[in-house]
Amino acid sequence: MQQVNLTLEQGKELAFNCLISNGCDDANAEATAENMITAERDGCSSHGLFRLPGYVISLKNGKINGRAAPVIKKSASSILRIDGKRGMAPLAHTIGKKAIIERVHDQGVVIAAFVNIFHMAALWLDVEPLADEGFTAITMTTSRSFVAPAGSSKPLFGTNPMAFAWPRANELPMVFDQATSVLARGEVQIAARDGLELPEGVGLDVRGCLTNNPESILEGALLPFGGYKGSAIALMIELLAGGLIGQPFSPEISALSNGDGGPEPGGQLLIALDPDRFGDQKGWRHHCEVLFAKMKSYPGVRLPGQRRQSNRDRIIKEGFQIPENLHKELLKLAEKVD
Amino acid sequence: MQQVNLTLEQGKELAFNCLISNGCDDANAEATAENMITAERDGCSSHGLFRLPGYVISLKNGKINGRAAPVIKKSASSILRIDGKRGMAPLAHTIGKKAIIERVHDQGVVIAAFVNIFHMAALWLDVEPLADEGFTAITMTTSRSFVAPAGSSKPLFGTNPMAFAWPRANELPMVFDQATSVLARGEVQIAARDGLELPEGVGLDVRGCLTNNPESILEGALLPFGGYKGSAIALMIELLAGGLIGQPFSPEISALSNGDGGPEPGGQLLIALDPDRFGDQKGWRHHCEVLFAKMKSYPGVRLPGQRRQSNRDRIIKEGFQIPENLHKELLKLAEKVD
Repeated sequence: MQQVNLTLEQGKELAFNCLISNGCDDANAEATAENMITAERDGCSSHGLFRLPGYVISLKNGKINGRAAPVIKKSASSILRIDGKRGMAPLAHTIGKKAIIERVHDQGVVIAAFVNIFHMAALWLDVEPLADEGFTAITMTTSRSFVAPAGSSKPLFGTNPMAFAWPRANELPMVFDQATSVLARGEVQIAARDGLELPEGVGLDVRGCLTNNPESILEGALLPFGGYKGSAIALMIELLAGGLIGQPFSPEISALSNGDGGPEPGGQLLIALDPDRFGDQKGWRHHCEVLFAKMKSYPGVRLPGQRRQSNRDRIIKEGFQIPENLHKELLKLAEKVD
Repeated sequence: MQQVNLTLEQGKELAFNCLISNGCDDANAEATAENMITAERDGCSSHGLFRLPGYVISLKNGKINGRAAPVIKKSASSILRIDGKRGMAPLAHTIGKKAIIERVHDQGVVIAAFVNIFHMAALWLDVEPLADEGFTAITMTTSRSFVAPAGSSKPLFGTNPMAFAWPRANELPMVFDQATSVLARGEVQIAARDGLELPEGVGLDVRGCLTNNPESILEGALLPFGGYKGSAIALMIELLAGGLIGQPFSPEISALSNGDGGPEPGGQLLIALDPDRFGDQKGWRHHCEVLFAKMKSYPGVRLPGQRRQSNRDRIIKEGFQIPENLHKELLKLAEKVD
């Protein structure tokens, strides 16, 4: 496939224009464009401009509000409820982040409930900036019914990703972001598109049999990572990012979905903690670096997230590539519709 | 092996007497005996009286303080630091629980850092009582270096268990408690004792090769559940239950260990949240029951923890069994040493 090379600035401008031309105000377009371009910056093209046509479809059909103005409510000293007002998740996070940082500085901990947002962005983008501030953060969200609970062969849970970030001394934060399915659904879709077989254990066909065929898995069910243990974590995420904060569970999101390929509504829970407030203010940074150094001394071991971060310098300098047909589509979507 | 049947009352009295005869004050003996007997009540004998000789060894050799008086410090509105003063974890939890419940009622959230405790109790015992109060709770702790990080064949992480409890309407809480290794180390030890083979994927021998032999795995390394994803969770637990709260990482605990078979020192993090404070006060109980009902309608699926809870009524009525040689040992340990 022909590729087009873009600088991060060019990519962001293109994304911004697409969003503005399709019903977003400046704040929503800026936050969502910045989110996708930050994913591209780290070589994570599956959460980059690739997502833009999906956002545009849902903006056009009125599923999401491109002019949503998120509202933040403090329900207790350490609890924030950030209502996205049926807009795209990135603006709720951009606005919420400031409030979260202020509260964590003040209280040492924040539990933030993001509600009424439409999410299809990478979760690590929501926690790494908090680790840049010196905090540790965990976040999780539901998706749609794609994953069979342990013991079953029918989808129930979402792929329910969880991301975690830890602040480091003189290094980029340690960050992981992982679905609770063996593979993220996007990876299975890409294998289907490219006609590849998957290793055994990723998913089941509609009859409930293990299969290597990605198309059969997309019709059937993904499996949770690590069997019943990953299944328990998927359930925990349903309860914390759904039940706890009054947002739909993955099967409810599936039932509500218009299937337009755009982001889906749902909730997201974020926990941010300031290690300076937990008793080892002088020592924790050095102490944790000793663990990281020990890990890296083990042959074959790397810290989660390092591959992504190692792309950063190169892409900032050289730009990134998108398929030519996606580029053409985006140029068309960016044209002003009057 | 000959078994001896005990009522829960008899078991608790025996445990209490063993602890008192070996250096515990009433409060420590009561909390630790109650902890082990609650495990027996749910048929979890691996965390029941089976653990008692280990506690006694460490009491006798002075590793743990049987007269420790835990101290609670409130570091912020929602942060408690519960210092076990080098005593056994159960008393820190018994005392800490009251403070946690009070704080969660007040603030909707508590992050509790348990420090300077010696832990070898079941973690679900620390979260189920909070769900009985209507809260959800997560807890995690480190252990010793038994688990190879993804990509490696040498142990680094602990088996680092995580437990989660969710309060239910008119039902016992939903509770899970799982090591981040494929199998808990105790399960591998029991297989070694009984001369059984393990399924592939549980662990590696000292040369780094997959093996079904439990003794070879005990000399080599356990594997994290779900490959690199479980490995990332094990790392997160090292950071949150160790680095965040100024407590040793699993390899540091290994280095400090006197290898006496008793509990090891370390930290534990507990997060408790009141769902009433997160925006769906009227609806969350019913909403979550809909999800549980849907799960249970799937053939082959059961809620985590149900097997354990189903033992409860029977054991309360009929008592529980321990091996005759353990019973003899405990009777001897319970004799007053003047």
